[in-house]
Order: sequence, then structure tokens, then C-alpha cells
Amino acid sequence: MLSVPADLSIEARWIVPMTVPGKVLENHTLVVRDGRIVELLPTEAAAARHAPTVTVRRTAHLLMPGMINTATQAARSLFRGIDSDLASLEQRFAGPEFVRDGVLVAVAEMLCSGITCFADRYYFPDECARAAALQGMRAIVGTPVAETPSLWAKSSGEYFTRALQVHDEYKDHPLISTAFAPFALDTLSEATFARIATLADELDARIVVDLHQCADEIAACVARHGMRPMMRLWELGLLTPALHAVPMALASAEDIELAGRTGMSISLCPTSSLAAGAGLPAVAELAASGIRLGLCSAHGARQPNYDLWGEMKLSALASGAGVSASGAWNALDMATRGGAAALGLDTEVGTLESGKWADLCCVDLSGPATQPLRDPVTQLVFGGGRDMVSDVWVAGRQLLAEGEMTRLDWPDVADRAQAWAARLTTGI
Amino acid sequence: MLSVPADLSIEARWIVPMTVPGKVLENHTLVVRDGRIVELLPTEAAAARHAPTVTVRRTAHLLMPGMINTATQAARSLFRGIDSDLASLEQRFAGPEFVRDGVLVAVAEMLCSGITCFADRYYFPDECARAAALQGMRAIVGTPVAETPSLWAKSSGEYFTRALQVHDEYKDHPLISTAFAPFALDTLSEATFARIATLADELDARIVVDLHQCADEIAACVARHGMRPMMRLWELGLLTPALHAVPMALASAEDIELAGRTGMSISLCPTSSLAAGAGLPAVAELAASGIRLGLCSAHGARQPNYDLWGEMKLSALASGAGVSASGAWNALDMATRGGAAALGLDTEVGTLESGKWADLCCVDLSGPATQPLRDPVTQLVFGGGRDMVSDVWVAGRQLLAEGEMTRLDWPDVADRAQAWAARLTTGI
Repeated sequence: MLSVPADLSIEARWIVPMTVPGKVLENHTLVVRDGRIVELLPTEAAAARHAPTVTVRRTAHLLMPGMINTATQAARSLFRGIDSDLASLEQRFAGPEFVRDGVLVAVAEMLCSGITCFADRYYFPDECARAAALQGMRAIVGTPVAETPSLWAKSSGEYFTRALQVHDEYKDHPLISTAFAPFALDTLSEATFARIATLADELDARIVVDLHQCADEIAACVARHGMRPMMRLWELGLLTPALHAVPMALASAEDIELAGRTGMSISLCPTSSLAAGAGLPAVAELAASGIRLGLCSAHGARQPNYDLWGEMKLSALASGAGVSASGAWNALDMATRGGAAALGLDTEVGTLESGKWADLCCVDLSGPATQPLRDPVTQLVFGGGRDMVSDVWVAGRQLLAEGEMTRLDWPDVADRAQAWAARLTTGI
Repeated sequence: MLSVPADLSIEARWIVPMTVPGKVLENHTLVVRDGRIVELLPTEAAAARHAPTVTVRRTAHLLMPGMINTATQAARSLFRGIDSDLASLEQRFAGPEFVRDGVLVAVAEMLCSGITCFADRYYFPDECARAAALQGMRAIVGTPVAETPSLWAKSSGEYFTRALQVHDEYKDHPLISTAFAPFALDTLSEATFARIATLADELDARIVVDLHQCADEIAACVARHGMRPMMRLWELGLLTPALHAVPMALASAEDIELAGRTGMSISLCPTSSLAAGAGLPAVAELAASGIRLGLCSAHGARQPNYDLWGEMKLSALASGAGVSASGAWNALDMATRGGAAALGLDTEVGTLESGKWADLCCVDLSGPATQPLRDPVTQLVFGGGRDMVSDVWVAGRQLLAEGEMTRLDWPDVADRAQAWAARLTTGI
């Protein structure tokens, strides 16, 4: 009998590879070697074929790709509960230690809720990258580009210089990739936009922007530039497959048509869109036009969240399909495969396929919210929550084991978060 | 020193009595005797004054009234994952054992998510009452009134006879109260409505009805009776403070004015309303008109849920207040005090006040989703979830202790739920 070496095999009651809609495998095993998926096969065949160092058995669980939070400002976790102007606090406090500690809080929340990859945009993206990598978490760090000074950079020139340093430092990293994150589009010059477009093209990096978040933003752009923000980006030549727009809460039929035609991708965030008074996103119309869609978490100032369970459920309902299997599948797709495609990571993660990184989330379906269990994916999306996430692996390394973080020292991170809360309260 | 006997004292980092908006007590203790709240006082004073049999200390937690799910069909938990006509399944399967086992699944989910009281409406309300009481859970059981036969009753006469038996059996029960639950309003005769109104008045019971759930329901009533369902109930004399309407997703300005004027109460369910294509409820307008509002859980057929965390967050966002302290307070109020008032239980539960039942929910705020912690209630509502519920007491009896159910035998209930799933699958 041929015995093929493997580092890890995971048997689960259900495995959902997210390669084909509706595909739920029963009593299969996922085999991992060197952090990547070797194959996904019936448990009996796996036992005959592989001799893994570690075998994990999850008899009441569903194994799926780790969720991808396609737009965060992770360090803002430290502003939770503050009801005042964050911009002025950021001017004073958002330095390297602040970013590191805030990112760790958000990483803890994300790991515990089944997220294996997040796309961040904030000052000190180098600190975010370092903290994520140290915890074994996958991240895309968006390097800010702005005309207004911050603790990170004093001028648009310095934003570019520091951005290029970060891109250079992480260009071959297995867990970290980079993107450009222009802040406050309305304030950026045409020259700055042109330089972002050139560099993103050279470095094959995404450009992640806030777009059509609320009515005020659109009205201001129309007043200043005579066109809606999306049309302005079109005029500037930025609407390409490299553009990733967040959260497109307000999208007209023309906007959707234009987005579909240009190949840009979009992160939806129904909670934030409701909070901003923009209503729910046009999920069904956006999906129908073939736009690559990911899901991202709420970034309300008073209580930014970093998990995707509520967003999955809400985006399924926003699609107008009710509590349906198709709505559930589309929502889970956005949270996994779709998010990877939207961020250009779909050759590396987002589905359970041979050769991709073993970024995995295992969910316990034996609890009272999902019993009796007949339709795993529908019940997962509409009845699920972070309480059901049992295990998380990133690149084959187990970061959450039966609900406990294996690597991140939460009591230490919580202490640091509280110390920041005290410092900021004094400073407000 | 005077030592006053007590059964239980609970010290918590924060206690939110829900008596006054914005009131958060720090380092206080709640004292319980014979299942009822004796007093709520500073921990130091409590130690000097009371000698409780049991002392519970929760140093990173918030203690609040148990949540009240103001409208459920608990037994429908057993239909989870089924995508076919439930009415015909109910005709065949919704007997006493089915109801008992389904209620237990929902009770488990509710306890684990911090709910201490639910208002149910289903066949075999006697079984629901018995199962809830046996588990120590508070319930209002709505006795069905219908013209169509079921396993519970063959004629409207028999529905009334059986309803009165249930009302009689539970009239003095400490945990169970009763209500009338007319099903399928469109099919009921005027004589049936008149009898419900008379009996509800005599027995001082609520009348709980589905109202303005979706556009089809309203259109059908207009076609048949020449008026909207709410106006029909007004004409029938049923819009009184005894009427409790679920979920009023579609409410015009006139409906809201009429509801405010008549003193009727309403259960909101934003998730169900979205699922039914009715959009989000007019939370702010309903609250402004002084209507007593409670929150209830989604009862989508494919995946009915029984927790209120998503409903709180969504109703706060639906109120248009964004991620705000006021939105959070109003949502938590609906889930506790407001729900009790809407169901006529506000002299017994809903706030932490001397003399009321000790129906309590304790939430751990030390985890990554709510750190750093500055504004407990806002962060609880917008960042909270059932994973944070640590302890639940109903009438002073601890039913959930550090996340574990003390009384309900979940493995046994789960086995029974799976057996029903198998039976129903064969029967479909």
C-alpha cells in the first residue's frame, strides 16, 4: 500500500469545498502538507493513502474555507465605545504601538469567528502586517495614500515612499500581500490618482477605496466635481479589475452596469450600510451583473465589529431570496471564494482545492441553534454564529483549537487594549 | 449588624436594571430570596446586610434582566431545513410529543442565548407549558383558535374548549401564563372573533395575532373585506390594550397612529420582515407614538431561530440612529422591559426591581468582540452575541451556569430532534 506523507488530515462530518454551488461532501478528509491542501477525498481512501503526522476528527462539524473579511480598519478596535471625532484622536494616537495592539484585538475576534484572512487599510500597515504574520494570520495590508498628514506620513510623497517600502518588504511573504488604499478620495489630486494607478499596475496590487457609502459623500462629489464618485474614478481611469470598492451601498442601475463592465470588485457590508442610512445593498443586482463580491465587517466608530456572521445572514436577506438555500449559498460564497476572487487571491485561497493554502474554518453544528440538522449550509448561514466556530487553520497551522486560541495571548492583548482605553480617555 | 437571609446574591461588574435609560450600576449586588429580587445595592452594603446561601461573582460581566422573546412557534424548530409545505406536515406530525420535543430544542437555544421568557403560539400549548415549566423556563402559551382542524382540535368549538382547559390549568402557575392565539385571521368568522374578545376580557389574557406581515396578506384582506387587516380588527373591536400584533412590518402612518391610540402592543422581528420582503419595520415611528414594543425571533420555515441578538442589533439600525447609545438602549429595552410591558408581564419581570421575579441574564464582556470596554450597553448591543451569555436564572433558579445548561439534558433532546428529522424525512 502506498503511504504518502502528510502533516495533517482533517475528517469532518461535512466538507464544503465552495468549488461548486451545492456541493457538500459527507465523511471526507482533507489532507494537508507544507501548509497547502494535498487533496480532499473519502475518509476511507484517505486512511489507505496517507500517513499524516496529525489527524483531527470532527464528527458533528462542517469544514469549509476560512472566511475572508475583505475590508477592515483593524486598529480601530481600540476606539470602541468612543462617541467623538475619531480623526483628531487618530492624529494623536494612531502610532505604531496603537496599530499593533488594535490589530491584535481584531485578529483575536476574527480568529474566534472563523476568519482566516483580512484586508486592512490603516496607518502603519507595516505594524499590521507584522502583527498578523506573527500570529500566523493571512492579511492584505492596504498602504494609505493621503494628502493630509498623520503620524504615519507627513505628505503625499511620504505616503508613497512608505507604501513602497511596505510593498517591497512583503512582496514574497507567504501570509502577507499588499494593496494601495487611497483615503478621502475627494481630497486627492489627479496626479496622486495617476501615480496610484501606475504603481498598482507595476506591482500588480489592488486599489481599495471607500465608494458610495452614503448620500452625503455622493452629493459632495457632485457639487465639487460635477459627477458621482464612481463616475469620477471612471474618468480618472481607475475603474479596472484592480479596483476594489467598499461598500457600494448606494448603487444605481448605471453604477452596477459600469461596475460589471469594468471588472472592478466590491466588498459589501450590509450592517455598515444600514448604519450609514444607505439601506441595504443591491446584492441580487450586483451578483447578477457578474461583479466579484466579498463581504466585510461593520466599521461603525462606536463598536466596530470584525466578524462576518451577521453580514452573511443580512446579505442573504438583502438579496431578496428570503430564507433560502440559494441565498445561503451566495452569502457563504461571498464570505469565502468570492472574497478571495474580489481581492485577487483566488489562486491561493477561498476554496478547498489541491495546491491552495489550507486556510480552514470548522463549525460545530451539534448545538441547539442548528438542530435538527438537515440542510447544513442553509442552517449554517441563517442559524450560525461565531459561537459555533471550533477550529481555524491558516496555511495548515491551527490557530484555534476547540474554541481556544493556540498562539495569540488574549489576556495580554486585553490588558494592552484596556491600557489604551485609559490613555485615550485621558486624552479625549 | 442586621443579617437578612437571602438565597442568592450576584455581584457583577456592571448591572443594568433597565428601570431608567442610561442607568448602569458598577460594583453592585443583586439579592434574591424565594425566586424574587429583594434589592439591588452596592456590593459593600450587600455584604454587610445579607447572608446569602449562594454568592455568585462575575467580575467582567454585565447583569441585566433576562431577554423576552415575545413571539415564537417553538415546536417548529423540528422543521428546520425543510423546504416544503409546513401546513400539511403539521396536519400529520404536530402532535403532543412533537410539540414537547420541538419546544425543548427551542428552550435550549433560548436559554443559551440569554432568554428567560417566551410567548409561544402553536398546537398543543399544554405540552409547551409543561415542557417549559419542567425546565424552569417562563412562558406565555398562546392557545390556538382556528376554523381548520388539526391534531389539537377538530372545530372552532373544540379549539375554545381546549383553550379554556389550558387557561384553567395554568391560571395560578408561577412560570406559565396564557393568551389567545387566533390563527389565519382571514379565515375566522365574526362570531369567533367576538368570542375571543369576550374570553380574553374575562380571563385578562392577551390576544396575539400575526398582522401586517407581508404585502400579500394585506392585499388578500382588502380584496375580501374591503379594508386592511388592522382596520378590520378595529372594526371587530379587537384593537385594545389586550391585542399584541406580530410583526407589523408594513405599517402606514395611519396604522401607527391607530396603534398608538388604541393601546395595543407590537412585537417587531426585523429578520423575518426582511425575509418576507417587507423591508425593515418603522422602529422610530412606532416608538415615538408610545406603542409598547417587544422583540421576537425569526420564524422562517427553513431555519427558525429563537435568539434575539441579531434582532436587537437590526432593530437599533432600523431605527435610523446608526451605531448610537440611544439606539442600543432602545433595542435592549425592547428585548427586556418593553417586551414584558407588551405582554402585560411588567409587574412581574422585565426590570431588576425589588419584588419582581429574578429572571436574569449575565453576559461576559471580556472577550475580543467587546474589548476595550468603555460603553457597556452600546458595545453589548452592537458587538454582542449569544457566545457571551454566561449565566441565566429564571425565578432565581440558575438554568445556565458558565455556559452550561444545568437542567436541560441537551444530548437527549438532540437525539429526539434527530429522530423527528428522520421520521419527517420518511413522511415528506
